[in-house]
Amino acid sequence: MRDPRYDILFEPIQIGPVRAKNRFYQVPHCNGMGHVYPKTLAAMRGIKAEGGWSVICTEEVEISPMSEIAPHHEGRLWEERDIPALRLMTDAVHAHGALAGIELMFNGYATPNRYSREVPIAPSHLPVRGKDPIQARTATKRDIANVRRWHRQAALRARDAGFDLIYVYAGHDLGMPMHFLSRRTNRRTDEYGGSLENRVRLFRELIEDTKEAVGDRCAVVVRLAVDQLLGPQGITAETEGHDVIAMLAELPDLWDVNIADWSNDSQTARFSGEGFQEPYIARVKSLTTKPVVGVGRYTSPDAMVRVIKSGIMDMIGAARPSIADPFLPKKIEAGRLEDIRECIGCNICVTGDNDCVPIRCTQNPTMGEEWRRGWHPEQVPAKASERSVLVVGAGPAGLELTRALGQRGYEVMLADGAELFGGRLRYESRLPGLASWHRVVDYRLQQISRMNQVMSLPGNALGVDEVLQSGASAVFIATGASWRTDGLGRAHRAPILDSADAAVFSPDALLRGQLPDGPVLIYDDDHYVLAGALAECLAKAGREVIYATPADKVSAWTDQTMEQGRVQQRLLSLGVRILCQVEWSGYQAQGGEREVVMASIYDGRETRVVVRAIVPVTMRDPDDGLYQGLLGVEAAWADHGLAEVQCVGDAYAPGTIAAAVYAGHKAAREFDGPRQDDPLPFKREWLNLQAE
Amino acid sequence: MRDPRYDILFEPIQIGPVRAKNRFYQVPHCNGMGHVYPKTLAAMRGIKAEGGWSVICTEEVEISPMSEIAPHHEGRLWEERDIPALRLMTDAVHAHGALAGIELMFNGYATPNRYSREVPIAPSHLPVRGKDPIQARTATKRDIANVRRWHRQAALRARDAGFDLIYVYAGHDLGMPMHFLSRRTNRRTDEYGGSLENRVRLFRELIEDTKEAVGDRCAVVVRLAVDQLLGPQGITAETEGHDVIAMLAELPDLWDVNIADWSNDSQTARFSGEGFQEPYIARVKSLTTKPVVGVGRYTSPDAMVRVIKSGIMDMIGAARPSIADPFLPKKIEAGRLEDIRECIGCNICVTGDNDCVPIRCTQNPTMGEEWRRGWHPEQVPAKASERSVLVVGAGPAGLELTRALGQRGYEVMLADGAELFGGRLRYESRLPGLASWHRVVDYRLQQISRMNQVMSLPGNALGVDEVLQSGASAVFIATGASWRTDGLGRAHRAPILDSADAAVFSPDALLRGQLPDGPVLIYDDDHYVLAGALAECLAKAGREVIYATPADKVSAWTDQTMEQGRVQQRLLSLGVRILCQVEWSGYQAQGGEREVVMASIYDGRETRVVVRAIVPVTMRDPDDGLYQGLLGVEAAWADHGLAEVQCVGDAYAPGTIAAAVYAGHKAAREFDGPRQDDPLPFKREWLNLQAE
Repeated sequence: MRDPRYDILFEPIQIGPVRAKNRFYQVPHCNGMGHVYPKTLAAMRGIKAEGGWSVICTEEVEISPMSEIAPHHEGRLWEERDIPALRLMTDAVHAHGALAGIELMFNGYATPNRYSREVPIAPSHLPVRGKDPIQARTATKRDIANVRRWHRQAALRARDAGFDLIYVYAGHDLGMPMHFLSRRTNRRTDEYGGSLENRVRLFRELIEDTKEAVGDRCAVVVRLAVDQLLGPQGITAETEGHDVIAMLAELPDLWDVNIADWSNDSQTARFSGEGFQEPYIARVKSLTTKPVVGVGRYTSPDAMVRVIKSGIMDMIGAARPSIADPFLPKKIEAGRLEDIRECIGCNICVTGDNDCVPIRCTQNPTMGEEWRRGWHPEQVPAKASERSVLVVGAGPAGLELTRALGQRGYEVMLADGAELFGGRLRYESRLPGLASWHRVVDYRLQQISRMNQVMSLPGNALGVDEVLQSGASAVFIATGASWRTDGLGRAHRAPILDSADAAVFSPDALLRGQLPDGPVLIYDDDHYVLAGALAECLAKAGREVIYATPADKVSAWTDQTMEQGRVQQRLLSLGVRILCQVEWSGYQAQGGEREVVMASIYDGRETRVVVRAIVPVTMRDPDDGLYQGLLGVEAAWADHGLAEVQCVGDAYAPGTIAAAVYAGHKAAREFDGPRQDDPLPFKREWLNLQAE
Repeated sequence: MRDPRYDILFEPIQIGPVRAKNRFYQVPHCNGMGHVYPKTLAAMRGIKAEGGWSVICTEEVEISPMSEIAPHHEGRLWEERDIPALRLMTDAVHAHGALAGIELMFNGYATPNRYSREVPIAPSHLPVRGKDPIQARTATKRDIANVRRWHRQAALRARDAGFDLIYVYAGHDLGMPMHFLSRRTNRRTDEYGGSLENRVRLFRELIEDTKEAVGDRCAVVVRLAVDQLLGPQGITAETEGHDVIAMLAELPDLWDVNIADWSNDSQTARFSGEGFQEPYIARVKSLTTKPVVGVGRYTSPDAMVRVIKSGIMDMIGAARPSIADPFLPKKIEAGRLEDIRECIGCNICVTGDNDCVPIRCTQNPTMGEEWRRGWHPEQVPAKASERSVLVVGAGPAGLELTRALGQRGYEVMLADGAELFGGRLRYESRLPGLASWHRVVDYRLQQISRMNQVMSLPGNALGVDEVLQSGASAVFIATGASWRTDGLGRAHRAPILDSADAAVFSPDALLRGQLPDGPVLIYDDDHYVLAGALAECLAKAGREVIYATPADKVSAWTDQTMEQGRVQQRLLSLGVRILCQVEWSGYQAQGGEREVVMASIYDGRETRVVVRAIVPVTMRDPDDGLYQGLLGVEAAWADHGLAEVQCVGDAYAPGTIAAAVYAGHKAAREFDGPRQDDPLPFKREWLNLQAE
């Protein structure tokens, strides 16, 4: 049962004309589904409503082709005909007694309108965000009147689609009202420019328009960035962020406040902790009597209670925690805190939106699969037989596989050669800022620990014979992968290093605590977290570090998780020497040192460095010796009652932790079903091909 | 009528069981439409068939979720249910007597399968192309058998969808058969690895499978990259590219040969001329009796005749020339060579696919608009009145506007202050390698020159009074834009430079021939062609050049046109000093020199350079003084019979030349229609929302 300390989280709250049943508020968040996958989207939002969130919002929803952000998959409400797709979502949300909110969006100069080809408009002439060679033009008075009309029409359509809360959006440097607000983008000299009163005019008008249009039935709420983290060049919480709220204090029905831009709002665990936005939003409540919502990657009910009781906010806003665990509110309500799947703050979710594919989550493998595969985050099919299963390897894939098979009711043995379970995460979570990644392990160990039919066998390095002797009917090999030490990978398709050279260190060795003498060269042909994080560790340990990569920047793929700027900044602050856009050209021993030649990827110009250690971070090889060994004795399986051997996770194909968890989960769900060579079918969204 | 010299281009040719009516062959090309916009796509392909191409192919078409390339919009033929969408295209093609070809695709390690989440497979373990932290796994024998089965099933479905030619695709380092072929990606030791005979095995098997399955009704054709431009590290035309064709010479019904990867195959005019692939494919015909197709951005019928007569190829493959002018074959057939809208080789078309939005073309503003706006590349609505029109400004927007209004039948006066028409293209086409860009002007001047109702007024710099006196009922202002000289733009939202400083040069001044003394600093906050091209010019003129940018690389947006590597390589070869990831921090005069401080975008670390000239390439301001002047005297319009003034192209909002041509074309089509504040509607493709 619920701990009474958390009662405050379950108090209803009035938001204008509507009433939320508790304080769990899923703020608008992108998801890579949008108007392209409306059934997929409705099911995902509906699951969150089922999980207890009292308010469930959309992603950005375009109100006009004059501001559309193709190819990104956001909502679309250009015309009446867009209503039915959004109705799928409001119906799914209402089915569980939650309120549905919609974030109407007019993004101005923040999008080049690649699909509609309309000229973007802005407070003042300005190239569009990003690098498209397109400029937005200065909005005329007629344009401003048009934007207000489009916004009002969209609000009416949103109401008709069943939404309960309607946003006026001035966040993230995306919504046009924010472009008018900020002196950085507003150089106007008319009544929409100059003084803050003038710059806030469009925002005020849009709120007033929306209230007038739908305020009788819908809450009119705002999302405002109170700080851009740009110091005096931008909006700050102490100055204009504060002043805007003071000026409009009682106008909207709710204040959803955060910091801009998106990379600041959605910082990863590597760079911020739970509640990191509190300093910026702490004073908002003193300026208004209306409910205030904020975010801060809260997963702890104690922290949630604290921020409400301390008067920082009235409702706990969440995007990522609601993705990692759609049932977070229900679990707190039921006193099942140990069942909470806490967000690890990795931003794999964000990569879905950035890549324009449905959102994925490291912790929650069912995210994005609710509709097309019918996966529920809390329910799995019951076991189909009494077969016993052996899982070898207790990393992310093996743990999730074991947990989900155990949840299905199967008897499972989980063996790992190590005394501690966790696989790669035992080591990777020790990297700076990545401690919360261990939650992937913690959650699963906690779940498994309560399953009588799961037997844990740590410190058991099984060989082929032991596996055969185990008596298991099915064996899953999840033994992970190891980094290559010869440099082969994306940039170099043949070995570039002598793995036997004592100066060559495997990333795995460093992860396990080995600390080579400097200077150390880290060669990053992987581009995700690891090489940058190892450089950080070594530099913090006082080593001279040279980080080299064929990419344009440090940890280039972390652009997708919105961390790249912070990663490179951190390495620079630690004195790491950075060589970008270089390939390996050769090296030779000079006593205990190695002279390494790097060549520009453009013109081959050479850079020479002399180091004592070389750490190639290029690709991994599956540790699938046991799997291959078992395949080699397939003839003997039947004698031992063994019917099936599968390889999953990194041992099958090295990838992200999210991919490993997903692979484990999928294997568990599909276990005991028909073996299929063709990929299992999933439902797709289909176009109407009839002529119109 | 047709020049008999070109008769050979109109000879039919047998391709396996099917017969093409002439030698114009639209090779497979991506288009940003694919399975996401099937009606849009069918109309676009149908227009090309109407324009006389005898073979019209699809883009890449996925055959299985085991290899899908979301978010890119390619074709999809995973299952029976995908057939109807493709049938739209084959019907549109057949309606004009052309053959339809389909490029079946299984992309192996070249895609991370972001949507299906299936593990990619490859000849050998390898990280996927790009930077996703996902590895493809080594294909087992079972995997290979599966790929063959999926390919065969897709071929059968393609046949049932009405396709006449079915591709086995081993091009661009994309198709899996090429991954097996290339030693760079194939480290296998079984019968699919090692010798060329082994590495070609999968390719051969797929061809044989396809012939066996559908060869009675469909031509089975191949697309093969005969050279990777990697020298001995890759496939070369002299060695294995040659040998593969020799080994399989008579197996397929047609050889479509090119070079890899895509950035090599589709080089821009800046880096290659018409027929640039001939050296690589010249020997192919000596190895096979089957028809050979090649590409080389051919727009000249003389060149086409030459390559056929000289035995280089049998059919003229084209992607880009068919985009710029879908009616290229019909125009040659009708002896209307002067009406050909020649491809300028800018690769704006490629940006559509890269950005995952429907393809656009600089020369052909109707490209991508055939279905949703009903635009035909050769037809416009007849005039709706006898109103006369004045167009001020004969750049890309004004020329296209005049041409299309003239085509509609309106009386148009086209005035420009300059003696020569062309606007920005007069100057930009003088940049190294961009001469063909002037075709945008040439085509339109040629068309206009034959229109009696169009009066050209060069050397006429009109003011407000002259415009009023012109007697025009409608005036379009297309007076272009000028580069700012104060540095304001994306990175800096306030001026950073004193425009009056004699050391500060406008990009416009350089475009017009001014050549400052070096050292010269070019600051690129635009990221498209101009800054890099100016650096090239200055360096070639012997100036010491420093190119600085906040971006990660030179001319960063040219990644979208697949030119970036070549641009940066060229500047380096000319000795240009390149400073990336820097912002402007300040500058001060030191006599005739300026000491400029640039700061790292990451940590502010400063770099100082001393130069004599500074060229900021940041953003443009519309040259809309005349437009604003006319708006200021709106009360006087009626007295002069003036009913309407519009501003178009760069004068309205600076953008690409493609955007200006499109704006001019759109304005011409919409002229004399209802004035609408809401964007004009276009048709959209809609999802089926019914529950299944």
